[in-house]
Amino acid sequence: MAKGPRAEKAIFDATLRLLTERGYDGLTVEGVADLAGVNKTTLYRWWPSKPALVRAALLRADVLTVEIPDTGSLRGDLIALVEGMIGLLGGQGAGGVAAAVLASAGRDETLAALSRDFFADRLERERPIFDRAVERGELSDATGVMTLMDLLAGAVWLRLVLRGLPAPPRFAEELVDTVLPGHAVRH
Amino acid sequence: MAKGPRAEKAIFDATLRLLTERGYDGLTVEGVADLAGVNKTTLYRWWPSKPALVRAALLRADVLTVEIPDTGSLRGDLIALVEGMIGLLGGQGAGGVAAAVLASAGRDETLAALSRDFFADRLERERPIFDRAVERGELSDATGVMTLMDLLAGAVWLRLVLRGLPAPPRFAEELVDTVLPGHAVRH
Repeated sequence: MAKGPRAEKAIFDATLRLLTERGYDGLTVEGVADLAGVNKTTLYRWWPSKPALVRAALLRADVLTVEIPDTGSLRGDLIALVEGMIGLLGGQGAGGVAAAVLASAGRDETLAALSRDFFADRLERERPIFDRAVERGELSDATGVMTLMDLLAGAVWLRLVLRGLPAPPRFAEELVDTVLPGHAVRH
Repeated sequence: MAKGPRAEKAIFDATLRLLTERGYDGLTVEGVADLAGVNKTTLYRWWPSKPALVRAALLRADVLTVEIPDTGSLRGDLIALVEGMIGLLGGQGAGGVAAAVLASAGRDETLAALSRDFFADRLERERPIFDRAVERGELSDATGVMTLMDLLAGAVWLRLVLRGLPAPPRFAEELVDTVLPGHAVRH
């Protein structure tokens, strides 16, 4: 992966903020350059198009990153992971709102491709959790992982973004303890 | 609920189509009247504002309705319900795309309120499935229903809308059989 310019953080922050405020259609590379305080040509040197810039911001911005936990058990790892998602999607920062922008992918093929890449990238980052669970003998194999993550992350999306409700206390534990027994039996 | 005009179906179809094509910001009541072939004053008589019109279309359009099954078992009802959601969100019609538009609620307070109302309305429609399961003794009570539906519907959203992937064969059964054992134990 090409190393971004020193102003990368400011550029990604500006990109996500404009995505949030104006949506993908209203975002311009010029607007990002202005807000980040960098020269437009600098920006174009690293990301030659608007989709390339937005893709880099979504995949690499720290504000959208959920830490991959290593607590020693699959249940502990999944609860920590879901808590991270709740923090991200429930927050008022760029994370929650850029996530909502991603969800408008249904209307636009470029955004749809970005959304697919974003979630594929997340799943790759989460995979070590399941590989470790297989090594510990907690799972027989790592099949069905996408479905398990769709259930957990999907529930957080639906409750926080689509229903617009706060996560109740111990929501992460409730979700994990509902899906894990059935998943463990099936795989 | 006030009975809509005879042209109600055409109006709701036009509303959802314009939502899909132009997004909430680009939709106008005049545009809906034109596309539906009705007089603008007729439209305003029933729905005095754009949010009122969009709310009615989202809550009442047949194309967004999932049939509430009554198969005789909670598992059968949930599988049929999730299959209906897969058909709705995976389709190319107004359903899937209007659903994606709803998901942009993070950016706009009016859309956020619509999204909340839409999902609250869906949960009310689904409640008889759980009331019948309690009557049959399959569940001890109907608590935890929102979490169960968030897991199931959230997984369909994440796989079909956000990941942009098709539902694999027997996806509805896989989801239900993963969440139901843990849910039944917890409630």
